[in-house]
Amino acid sequence: MSERKAVVLFGHGARDPEWARPMERTREALRKQAPELRVELAFLELMRPTLEEAIDTLAGQGVTRITVVPMFLAHGGHLKRDVPVLIEAARRRHPGCGIDQALAVGEAEGVVTAMAEYALRSAQAGE
Amino acid sequence: MSERKAVVLFGHGARDPEWARPMERTREALRKQAPELRVELAFLELMRPTLEEAIDTLAGQGVTRITVVPMFLAHGGHLKRDVPVLIEAARRRHPGCGIDQALAVGEAEGVVTAMAEYALRSAQAGE
Repeated sequence: MSERKAVVLFGHGARDPEWARPMERTREALRKQAPELRVELAFLELMRPTLEEAIDTLAGQGVTRITVVPMFLAHGGHLKRDVPVLIEAARRRHPGCGIDQALAVGEAEGVVTAMAEYALRSAQAGE
Repeated sequence: MSERKAVVLFGHGARDPEWARPMERTREALRKQAPELRVELAFLELMRPTLEEAIDTLAGQGVTRITVVPMFLAHGGHLKRDVPVLIEAARRRHPGCGIDQALAVGEAEGVVTAMAEYALRSAQAGE
């Protein structure tokens, strides 16, 4: 039986509703690249759904493999300490669903290259 | 007279010293792409130098144009409210130096695309 897979783009959250826009744009880009892949957003604080809520919803809908992709610049304290605890608890709630945590997006080589290119273009824009 | 330009990669900061690694890698990538461009790191909190310290150092060394590139996922409250105040104060301290604030890296189209590609690869890695 084939797996039903999903990605959760997991960000810090903020009071400003516009803060989630890059996550929404990433979800749109993902949907174009992989229309068959379920993609949901989730937040550590200040925005909803929480990571628990997003995982519970997906597992409740029969998703059998969830990859949590942290939309953070770096793999810091939240991702090293807090999120593994949340994920371990979610695994216990949903033993039929595999749940993995990826490294933070900012640690990815392609993202580092894109950030450098953007910084260079920004510096050149003022010329 | 040609301008002496610099980029400040400006991040939130964290207690974990490894947190700054993606910023350091971005600086290395920038130095390869543009060896003539001065690139410094700066932090909002918990790490040094601060944005004020980085700008004062660069301006004191004769840099005449500084582009502050926020290493944040989104252009949220810190970047809308706190950082413009810091930059305006720095402009008053250094009237001979042009100082611009770019949008957060996470708002850049190329970075959004790279984040989506990384998320897709992460989801496929478990297959």
